[in-house]
Amino acid sequence: MTPIMTEAELTEFMYRAFPQAADDFHVERLTPEGIVMRLRVAERHLRPGGTVSGPTMFGLADVAIYLAILARIGPVALAVTTNGSIDFLRKPAAGVDLLGEARLLKLGKVLAVGDVLIRSEGVEAPVARSSMTYSLPPQR
Amino acid sequence: MTPIMTEAELTEFMYRAFPQAADDFHVERLTPEGIVMRLRVAERHLRPGGTVSGPTMFGLADVAIYLAILARIGPVALAVTTNGSIDFLRKPAAGVDLLGEARLLKLGKVLAVGDVLIRSEGVEAPVARSSMTYSLPPQR
Amino acid sequence: MTPIMTEAELTEFMYRAFPQAADDFHVERLTPEGIVMRLRVAERHLRPGGTVSGPTMFGLADVAIYLAILARIGPVALAVTTNGSIDFLRKPAAGVDLLGEARLLKLGKVLAVGDVLIRSEGVEAPVARSSMTYSLPPQR
Amino acid sequence: MTPIMTEAELTEFMYRAFPQAADDFHVERLTPEGIVMRLRVAERHLRPGGTVSGPTMFGLADVAIYLAILARIGPVALAVTTNGSIDFLRKPAAGVDLLGEARLLKLGKVLAVGDVLIRSEGVEAPVARSSMTYSLPPQR
Repeated sequence: MTPIMTEAELTEFMYRAFPQAADDFHVERLTPEGIVMRLRVAERHLRPGGTVSGPTMFGLADVAIYLAILARIGPVALAVTTNGSIDFLRKPAAGVDLLGEARLLKLGKVLAVGDVLIRSEGVEAPVARSSMTYSLPPQR
Repeated sequence: MTPIMTEAELTEFMYRAFPQAADDFHVERLTPEGIVMRLRVAERHLRPGGTVSGPTMFGLADVAIYLAILARIGPVALAVTTNGSIDFLRKPAAGVDLLGEARLLKLGKVLAVGDVLIRSEGVEAPVARSSMTYSLPPQR
Repeated sequence: MTPIMTEAELTEFMYRAFPQAADDFHVERLTPEGIVMRLRVAERHLRPGGTVSGPTMFGLADVAIYLAILARIGPVALAVTTNGSIDFLRKPAAGVDLLGEARLLKLGKVLAVGDVLIRSEGVEAPVARSSMTYSLPPQR
Repeated sequence: MTPIMTEAELTEFMYRAFPQAADDFHVERLTPEGIVMRLRVAERHLRPGGTVSGPTMFGLADVAIYLAILARIGPVALAVTTNGSIDFLRKPAAGVDLLGEARLLKLGKVLAVGDVLIRSEGVEAPVARSSMTYSLPPQR
């Protein structure tokens, strides 16, 4: 599961494939286990009370595991999310970005599975936990 | 679990509480079991290949169960999503809205649980299935 | 998704393939959407306080969706559970069996997805809700 | 989240509260983040092909997070599983026990959440991943 794409290549891929989402997310760094993605928290992500909306955090988990997979199989593959689950644990800290730390737990022929811990930058206690399954195309 | 709010009251609440999200979603109708919500599918919800993005469908499931709960306990309560899971089953049909049909399965003192089937309008086979748990405030 | 196996054939298959589990479970009836399975609740399934243990209910959901799939693709296929989620909603009624009503939501080439409502026999309010994904063998 | 019970006290509690399950499971060690539990794999846990049954692994995850919580709040509390999700990643190695390494991610007033990686003893690649939510009694 060694990466075959660099952070710059993943970023370029993200801007081409998801131009809208690419303003929200930033490839922080590839890790031996997966990837760390940053959500640049903006007004449009917030709910009353100042919490980041659930769908936004789901999106952070989704893109983190997606790019953790693509970094290992290359940008050609068409991976599709088949299942996602997320636990919302705490209100995020105000005024800081969210970091999603993804681990790739399985990269099989047909399915890939990863999980993510989402934290407010600089805070240890996690804001959310998520896991996602992707279906991978047969011809790779 | 008889509703104590009307569709018009839920709509008005949604516009006040979530002005951004309220353009995406429409209260279709209250049902004995829950609610039907419409996602007005627009360009910004789509991913390459024409599918509706996962976070958008997660958001539809989230708002449907949230409003199914509020319709029964009133607009004052501060319900918070604690857990959500979603299965993506099929690509949505092109050019039509998505309808999320939510069932309230439990409305307890502390927790409420519901599930949702998401379909392309006019198509029987479901696009996604989701379930969500909400934590309810103690003083109601 | 019309069944190609009868209830008797499913029962016989279950006794051959899972001799231990087959004492716990009973094929109640095939339905147009899936299947209804009975858990014959016995002392060994109970936890202190008289509730049916979580793993036992997980097992009921698992076998119900598994047999709902096999009824449609035949007993030769080797389906493997890849993901399961379950919400425990209420304590079961004392002294009665549990019925799991499964719906098959997707029966694809690679994946099958179903969900289940578990109820105490004769009680409307559900005890648990579960969904499961199965990976299907390619050569069918 | 420092433990207030020892491994011996947890073991004794498990034998009293779940005499049947206590033969299957062994408290391996408390960790700063949670607990490690051992499943003593026996014939009765296996499915055709030699894999450990899904409900058995669900049970391992359930007991691991349960005891990780009790170790921190004491044996009096009546915690109830409200939600569980599990991803089955690989077939376990033959003839060895399973180890479930649980992390407590949240220990709130009302809810506790943890996740677990299950591995065959001596093998790095995980066999399953699970997360569970527990409802905690108000008066503690």
